[in-house]
Amino acid sequence: MRQTLNNPCFSRIQALREDFPGYQVDGILFSNMNNIRYLTGFTGSEGVLLLSAKSALLLVDGRYTTQAASEVQQISVIQYSNKIQGIQQAVSDLHLKRIGFEASFMKVDMYHELTKRFKEAKLVPLGDELRLLRVRKDNQEIILMKKAAAIASAAVAALAGIIKPGWTEQEAALELEIIARRAGAEQLAFETIIASGENAALPHARPTIRRIKKGDFVVIDFGVKYQGYCSDETCTFAIGELTGDRKNAYRAVLKAHDEAIASIRADIAAAEVDAVARRALGKKYSRYFVHGTGHGVGLEVHEAPRLAPASRDVLAAGMVVTVEPGLYYPGLWGIRIEDTVLVKKKCCEIMTKMDKKLIVIE
Amino acid sequence: MRQTLNNPCFSRIQALREDFPGYQVDGILFSNMNNIRYLTGFTGSEGVLLLSAKSALLLVDGRYTTQAASEVQQISVIQYSNKIQGIQQAVSDLHLKRIGFEASFMKVDMYHELTKRFKEAKLVPLGDELRLLRVRKDNQEIILMKKAAAIASAAVAALAGIIKPGWTEQEAALELEIIARRAGAEQLAFETIIASGENAALPHARPTIRRIKKGDFVVIDFGVKYQGYCSDETCTFAIGELTGDRKNAYRAVLKAHDEAIASIRADIAAAEVDAVARRALGKKYSRYFVHGTGHGVGLEVHEAPRLAPASRDVLAAGMVVTVEPGLYYPGLWGIRIEDTVLVKKKCCEIMTKMDKKLIVIE
Repeated sequence: MRQTLNNPCFSRIQALREDFPGYQVDGILFSNMNNIRYLTGFTGSEGVLLLSAKSALLLVDGRYTTQAASEVQQISVIQYSNKIQGIQQAVSDLHLKRIGFEASFMKVDMYHELTKRFKEAKLVPLGDELRLLRVRKDNQEIILMKKAAAIASAAVAALAGIIKPGWTEQEAALELEIIARRAGAEQLAFETIIASGENAALPHARPTIRRIKKGDFVVIDFGVKYQGYCSDETCTFAIGELTGDRKNAYRAVLKAHDEAIASIRADIAAAEVDAVARRALGKKYSRYFVHGTGHGVGLEVHEAPRLAPASRDVLAAGMVVTVEPGLYYPGLWGIRIEDTVLVKKKCCEIMTKMDKKLIVIE
Repeated sequence: MRQTLNNPCFSRIQALREDFPGYQVDGILFSNMNNIRYLTGFTGSEGVLLLSAKSALLLVDGRYTTQAASEVQQISVIQYSNKIQGIQQAVSDLHLKRIGFEASFMKVDMYHELTKRFKEAKLVPLGDELRLLRVRKDNQEIILMKKAAAIASAAVAALAGIIKPGWTEQEAALELEIIARRAGAEQLAFETIIASGENAALPHARPTIRRIKKGDFVVIDFGVKYQGYCSDETCTFAIGELTGDRKNAYRAVLKAHDEAIASIRADIAAAEVDAVARRALGKKYSRYFVHGTGHGVGLEVHEAPRLAPASRDVLAAGMVVTVEPGLYYPGLWGIRIEDTVLVKKKCCEIMTKMDKKLIVIE
């Protein structure tokens, strides 16, 4: 007998179905592969999931028929040769009239094509309703995310033991990635950032052939995937002794990071956590903090909620979010300190493992 | 003085502007980052490009202002704090009335939001018009793609020298990726496929912990990026001696691959190249060939044109496409043989470097 009792997909789909009346739909069409993985277990790169109150159809092309059948339970796998026609047929078979869809994911051309073809069915855009679909992680997800975080943190710690002035950023990134892959990372969660000296002033720098040298800050923003789940962590190393100014700047960012994390608990507004970080940076530094304080992490490295001044999200137990204040002085240097934390009822648990006290590389 | 004469972005933008009357637009809004990189040189992960007949505005958030300014020429970089508002302002500043957009890329929610906010401007979906935007590669692009192909092929050749029965698919994938990264690959072009035995029957398998053993076919589908450009190549190794049946099947796929490549030249229909491969496989094998014969490659590993039965594309000199017939016997074994080729006037040039004669690993 196939194991079905512990499959979390059933309760996820069931919870979604209970929202159908509120969304005024009798079905939902999913095309975001992370949502499909979350709801079915299918890990392929293309497909469509159509849910009705009673049925679940996973539509895939010929590359994925065998794989889908082996990965999903209690969901019918249907092979299409033309995706639009496949959807049209499935909607007709299920007699759907109002079909919700991921408005922040479906492309305009598919929307127009489906609208044109549906005879009686109507497409109903779901935006905020689905934005929070995967936002609260269950225990199994937390275990995978902690494993991803442990692999990535250990790799950064290992890099700290070998990196030397004279290495290029690209050499450091390569060593870091090899260490993590050998330790079980299935892939990177995002393009590794290793940014030294003036490059550290670019929040999203790519590793270059610049050689790391004394006096640099080196920002290392690194994450891996483990069974689909991402980690995300940033350390800033100092190469050799720092000037007093830079030490003070590092302390200011660490204080913002610590105070933001200390503020996190269920029911706090995400914008308030962001404000805590900005207040901690104070007048002297906060205008050099040019991005939001954090974001959710899960099957995607950037997902809901958003911790930023304009965010309307409210944190809840089970959410996993980053806290990553930084300072960027264009043309000069930059600092970022980031942990990923699990929101709990009255506090949060830090999932990433590197100590954030300043690490000085000699 | 900044080097501007050789910047290919100018002629790409100019060519696009000449199509404005045909598209019945006075501007185009781009949000696909590969298109933006192609048209501006900006390599960030988020931003919007607004082109009018005379102006080019690159809208980015605070993370990318410095980077964008250093990467683009003769394009104004504008920092937004809210993307939708930034676009609205830019459209108003340029007095645009009819704005083309990437219908196969823009999400429905952004489309609805912009439609609601634009007062006089109207959004005009561009589909096929933009699908072929990057399809013909110039000399500089060809050089980068050949470099990517050379790195990946050399890595597969090196793997062939060390892989042994008893290795898991995941171990083989890790070694392959490390070799390629050490040789200068900036990242993978896609998730590596190493599929052995019955796993090779899944066209898009992920590497597993299955151990490679005598009698297996091992399908290795591998590609890397070099300065943004992708390579894509598949080899199928035999582990130990094969039965006569499997040798015949390999020969049939190789014949389909060779004949399809021999058919490629400017002005041939892409569907005809696909048909050549299917005809070569013949009645005995062609029903086990469950996907298209190939696809374009460039900044994305899958882009236009499409070589498949229903494709309406016609090949042209400068296109770069894969040719990748395969056979898949669910639960048993699979074979795929793939090269990436540059379409020329009367023939094509194979860019990937592995010989496709059967490699037997002892």
